[in-house]
Amino acid sequence: MPDRHEMWKDLGMDLEAHDTLCSVLPQAFGDIYLSQENRPEGMAFWDMVVSDIHGIRPAELMEAQKEGRKVFGTFCLYVPDEIIVAAGGIVTGLCGGSQFWVPAGEEVLPKSMCSLIKASVGARLGRTCPFFRIADMYVGETTCDGKKKAYEILGRDVPMYVMDMPQMKRPQDYVKWAEEINAFKKIVEEFTGNEVTVEKLHEATVLLNNRRKALERVYHARKADPAPISGKDALLMMQIAFFDDPQRCTDMANTLAAELEQRIKDGVGVAAAGTKRIMLAGTPMAIPNWKMHHIVETSGAVVVCEECCTGTRYFEHQVDETPTTASEQIMALAQRYMKNNCACFTPNTGRIDDLLRLCREYKVDGVIDVNLKFCTLYDTESRDVQYALKEAGIPSIHIETDYDDNDAEQLRTRVGAFIEMLG
Amino acid sequence: MPDRHEMWKDLGMDLEAHDTLCSVLPQAFGDIYLSQENRPEGMAFWDMVVSDIHGIRPAELMEAQKEGRKVFGTFCLYVPDEIIVAAGGIVTGLCGGSQFWVPAGEEVLPKSMCSLIKASVGARLGRTCPFFRIADMYVGETTCDGKKKAYEILGRDVPMYVMDMPQMKRPQDYVKWAEEINAFKKIVEEFTGNEVTVEKLHEATVLLNNRRKALERVYHARKADPAPISGKDALLMMQIAFFDDPQRCTDMANTLAAELEQRIKDGVGVAAAGTKRIMLAGTPMAIPNWKMHHIVETSGAVVVCEECCTGTRYFEHQVDETPTTASEQIMALAQRYMKNNCACFTPNTGRIDDLLRLCREYKVDGVIDVNLKFCTLYDTESRDVQYALKEAGIPSIHIETDYDDNDAEQLRTRVGAFIEMLG
Repeated sequence: MPDRHEMWKDLGMDLEAHDTLCSVLPQAFGDIYLSQENRPEGMAFWDMVVSDIHGIRPAELMEAQKEGRKVFGTFCLYVPDEIIVAAGGIVTGLCGGSQFWVPAGEEVLPKSMCSLIKASVGARLGRTCPFFRIADMYVGETTCDGKKKAYEILGRDVPMYVMDMPQMKRPQDYVKWAEEINAFKKIVEEFTGNEVTVEKLHEATVLLNNRRKALERVYHARKADPAPISGKDALLMMQIAFFDDPQRCTDMANTLAAELEQRIKDGVGVAAAGTKRIMLAGTPMAIPNWKMHHIVETSGAVVVCEECCTGTRYFEHQVDETPTTASEQIMALAQRYMKNNCACFTPNTGRIDDLLRLCREYKVDGVIDVNLKFCTLYDTESRDVQYALKEAGIPSIHIETDYDDNDAEQLRTRVGAFIEMLG
Repeated sequence: MPDRHEMWKDLGMDLEAHDTLCSVLPQAFGDIYLSQENRPEGMAFWDMVVSDIHGIRPAELMEAQKEGRKVFGTFCLYVPDEIIVAAGGIVTGLCGGSQFWVPAGEEVLPKSMCSLIKASVGARLGRTCPFFRIADMYVGETTCDGKKKAYEILGRDVPMYVMDMPQMKRPQDYVKWAEEINAFKKIVEEFTGNEVTVEKLHEATVLLNNRRKALERVYHARKADPAPISGKDALLMMQIAFFDDPQRCTDMANTLAAELEQRIKDGVGVAAAGTKRIMLAGTPMAIPNWKMHHIVETSGAVVVCEECCTGTRYFEHQVDETPTTASEQIMALAQRYMKNNCACFTPNTGRIDDLLRLCREYKVDGVIDVNLKFCTLYDTESRDVQYALKEAGIPSIHIETDYDDNDAEQLRTRVGAFIEMLG
């Protein structure tokens, strides 16, 4: 692995603090990931990415910047990647999945805000995330109170563009969202200096639909019993998808899916047939947040699906590729992105439909609905989720947790009891 | 005071629980309000209202309903009263200011949600608020995550209409808000069976502008030293304005203002000239939340202004009365309501401008920026508020509190020290 200190220094990072972070990750990854048995060979790619997670991709992004390309850091899957890609820009996720970054976030944000937001802001202000340093522009959206106000802080020394999400899904809200996407298109065109032509947007749409299909293909394989891949590994693929080059992501996911399909034919799984199948639902799990998956999968069950933004919501629903005019294309994007049933919408009954459907599709034995502490939206919805699952006869528990490990033993006890109860 | 039990029973209220609430209020009001010295005579009206707070106005509302008028319960001052009044409807505030209601709210909402929302939902579900029982329709708005999700619960057995607030203040957002007001107008017309004509809307606009002027006139008197009225009394007037008949509110506020103006001429105040003048800023204080005012005004200072929804934001900025077409009228409403600098907007720098201006206008010695626990929006903004006030040389403290009195002594110590520090 090449020494990246020179690059990180050029990025103005806090090298000492960042070294502390880097020194912890290999041990954690070894304990949680490499200790797994019978992993698909295709996971070698993602293991390699993690081994140099703040090196390989940042170096590629900086290389692209030297060629004049712009990098857009995003926080949420409502931001339509298609527009950025069509303008020759590059989309990258941003750091936010580790307790390491939380204290720096708490210096400027309320403690009673979710860890994801505090970690993101902390990663930026603490200068310990290369992606936050590299991005030429951050793109936010008004999906929750915490992020909305955090963007005001993040926008102080980097161009920050915020898209105003409709908070409802009435017919007029689709039009509003199309207008927002159109306004965003103009911003991206100005910022990159490249026009988003009908042709370019079509190409980008196909590219990103293919990514969706590849990721979905991996998830489709998870419907088999025995499960051909652990939940942890599938989660890792999803987490890195937010950072990776879209075409490479597609290729790697397709390679992995082919291997999983062969495993299914061969009756090979990562756990015995009949192992209890768990779906995790709720708030996103940004890398390296593997906490719940690790607890579930070391408690005798396997995670077969994630109903969240780092799960099904990232790839379900294709964008219609048939439009031939700019305005139809934009409306097709609006239609697709509004299909995501995020708790930021009111009402959000479509999410209940998704949950019940996914339980059937993935042959789920039990649902763990988990939200980060202080996520008002998912926490409030958890009551409806529990009620609907109970009505449908699907066992479930609701868990509220955080990035730190103080509650790990307590969670292990609860999750263990839940899995045991599944019989 | 007439016995209201028959009426409350007709409203399907939980009489036993409600009696408990009613039995506490007189003592609290006596201790906090009636113990004040040298109150304006005009406050007798509001004392009378409080003495029968769940009786007088509810009886009037029910009388109006018998005549076919519709009652709309609202939670937020972005809902344009003008539309409802123009359609012959009546606007009423809803309960939400007491710890009494919080436990019933916590049965269906996260504990980590602000007391105002938990109390509102608790007051509804516990059947201990006549206004929640009387309202024919609730009207909400997407101003914060907590309210947005709470409306889903409240809408289960009462018609609930939600207006989608823009979360930003770009030129297009004023248009969006006008469209929302227009959609709301149609709903109100259907629900009341009355058309909102240009003439009716003009009348309603004048009526409600006059209310704004009257309330502002009382606030204007508070700029004098010595302060002619306590902060507590001014707050009470504001709190009840949300429930009262608009014309009566206007008349009573004008009568009170005239008395205060006479006091100023006579050099009469509720505290000695030179008493330290405090502005409270932050989250709304719904009746009977008098906690911070009581602490400040029994610690040697006087509250001269409230920068919040139960303060200046309710009456500042008139609606333009000159438009003669429906669409111009709607746009005038949108323009006026968007002038409110609520923390739900991003960015919300206009609020900082307001704060600095109000400090000058009300000759404020110190600002107490206070938010209810778990109000992500105001809590996050408090850092900018503190910074801006410091830059301007205005002493300030930030307080996070709740409805219960567990922290009262601690707050008394902090507020006392702050006031002493003002010299």
